[in-house]
Amino acid sequence: MDGWPSWRGVIEFGATLAFALSGLIEASRKKLDVVGVCVVAFLTAFGGGTLRDVLLDRRPFFWVEHAHWISALLVLCVASMLLLRTRHIHFTARAMQWPDAVGLGLFAASGTQIALDVQMPAIVAALMGTVTAVFGGVLRDVVCNDIPRTFIDHRPYAVCAFAGAWVVIGADALGLAAGVGLVLGGAVAMTLRALALWLGWRVPAWRQQD
Amino acid sequence: MDGWPSWRGVIEFGATLAFALSGLIEASRKKLDVVGVCVVAFLTAFGGGTLRDVLLDRRPFFWVEHAHWISALLVLCVASMLLLRTRHIHFTARAMQWPDAVGLGLFAASGTQIALDVQMPAIVAALMGTVTAVFGGVLRDVVCNDIPRTFIDHRPYAVCAFAGAWVVIGADALGLAAGVGLVLGGAVAMTLRALALWLGWRVPAWRQQD
Amino acid sequence: MDGWPSWRGVIEFGATLAFALSGLIEASRKKLDVVGVCVVAFLTAFGGGTLRDVLLDRRPFFWVEHAHWISALLVLCVASMLLLRTRHIHFTARAMQWPDAVGLGLFAASGTQIALDVQMPAIVAALMGTVTAVFGGVLRDVVCNDIPRTFIDHRPYAVCAFAGAWVVIGADALGLAAGVGLVLGGAVAMTLRALALWLGWRVPAWRQQD
Repeated sequence: MDGWPSWRGVIEFGATLAFALSGLIEASRKKLDVVGVCVVAFLTAFGGGTLRDVLLDRRPFFWVEHAHWISALLVLCVASMLLLRTRHIHFTARAMQWPDAVGLGLFAASGTQIALDVQMPAIVAALMGTVTAVFGGVLRDVVCNDIPRTFIDHRPYAVCAFAGAWVVIGADALGLAAGVGLVLGGAVAMTLRALALWLGWRVPAWRQQD
Repeated sequence: MDGWPSWRGVIEFGATLAFALSGLIEASRKKLDVVGVCVVAFLTAFGGGTLRDVLLDRRPFFWVEHAHWISALLVLCVASMLLLRTRHIHFTARAMQWPDAVGLGLFAASGTQIALDVQMPAIVAALMGTVTAVFGGVLRDVVCNDIPRTFIDHRPYAVCAFAGAWVVIGADALGLAAGVGLVLGGAVAMTLRALALWLGWRVPAWRQQD
Repeated sequence: MDGWPSWRGVIEFGATLAFALSGLIEASRKKLDVVGVCVVAFLTAFGGGTLRDVLLDRRPFFWVEHAHWISALLVLCVASMLLLRTRHIHFTARAMQWPDAVGLGLFAASGTQIALDVQMPAIVAALMGTVTAVFGGVLRDVVCNDIPRTFIDHRPYAVCAFAGAWVVIGADALGLAAGVGLVLGGAVAMTLRALALWLGWRVPAWRQQD
């Protein structure tokens, strides 16, 4: 309980908040009603971690352990909607990319660490980290009636999470404290995604004239 | 086993039947083939409860406990399809709203009660009731290639289930018999949804000219 | 460990490989990038079995038990993509139907047998076999942004898996060795699907002018 669980707690909290914000921004751009805003923010924030917990058969879910996060998120959604409505704030299409990148990195790190803790093989842990990081955003896009960004945006997204997951696995194999692996892995995934957005990196694809 | 489990049994049976009917009506309007009709009826009837049982880690599933319901539903689907084909019965777009409202109320109540029985915090129980009530209909709409009604219909839907769930939680906190809470909560959710449809209530949204 | 588990191992391996191929073919036709190709191949190969294992509460997942399959599939995806890109190989729309039919048959048989092994009632086992067989393909189509073939293709698909499942259940009830039921059930499902494709069988539907 002492040492890294608190690291993981902080990182999961940050990841949940970051994804909730990206969901809020996206829902406000789509002009969803107040129920839609809450649903999108919830699915984005809790979707990836819930799928990870189902796949690893971990109970209670992290949002049952932290049941007050649910109420806090509900208040956040309604309050931001009222605020945005009053202040006439508008978001550009790219505004949600930055909280999204933060959530991607943090969830990739914590998902991988949790899978390692229950003795999953390295490749499975890397997959779990990637799933945790990516699935919330996939749900957000599906519910907003977009094709999931992960599949059509040719800039690396899942790949950044996958790379960050391997950093966590490497740190674990080297016997470093779990907190170090979490921070390093999260930072690598986030930085790669930010660079990918900034420099316009592209994933290898078929030739255009193929 | 005595007392309220039988209440819950009756309520789950009613909810499953009501959602199966709404799925049947929707599938017949979309002119799906016999396989499609069965798939849509099954997903609508069993989808919400299955997600609830996965999230709460309850096994066996309620449709494994009542395996004969599956066969009964299969017979019901094929029989109604033959009947509808012969009698040239057509449904209007709004015909499925009424069984849908009944299923919504009953599943909201039973899902909340089941979550309370396994000692979930109140906010989690309310969420479970809402998920149980809403998810079957979401699957029905996704499979029929519609955008889920819950997200675009601006009349309250999930909100009614959420309100009904809190009635169940309140009755539980007051120490009333579980049957009372179930019936009251289900009735409140159903009535709210019926009033919302009838009076055209709307969920707060962004301003049109925002 | 002696006798039929090895049968099941062979059959699950064949089914996974067949569905991975169908996913690869479909992803290459859609010109997805390398991440998309891997995601589609993974979801198609592992989706049905994972849903089955979640529903039956079986852990570890079959892809955690065989974690090297994941790495092998990753290598296969990247290698085939490079090969296809170099050799300018193109697939017709119908190319994926044949590995798809093989995967359908094999997963229907193994899914049913696994459900019988954990004492599910016959109708639930038949449903589990069908879900295992069908769900990977549904995920493939959803991710490739198609309407799932199972729901719009009026040729029998899920029905073939359902028929194969009942052959496995019948063989089990007759007390035959599990290997016999698996091979028979898989062969029946595969043959029915191949005949359906070849002879253009159709599922009963509404009348056109209805």
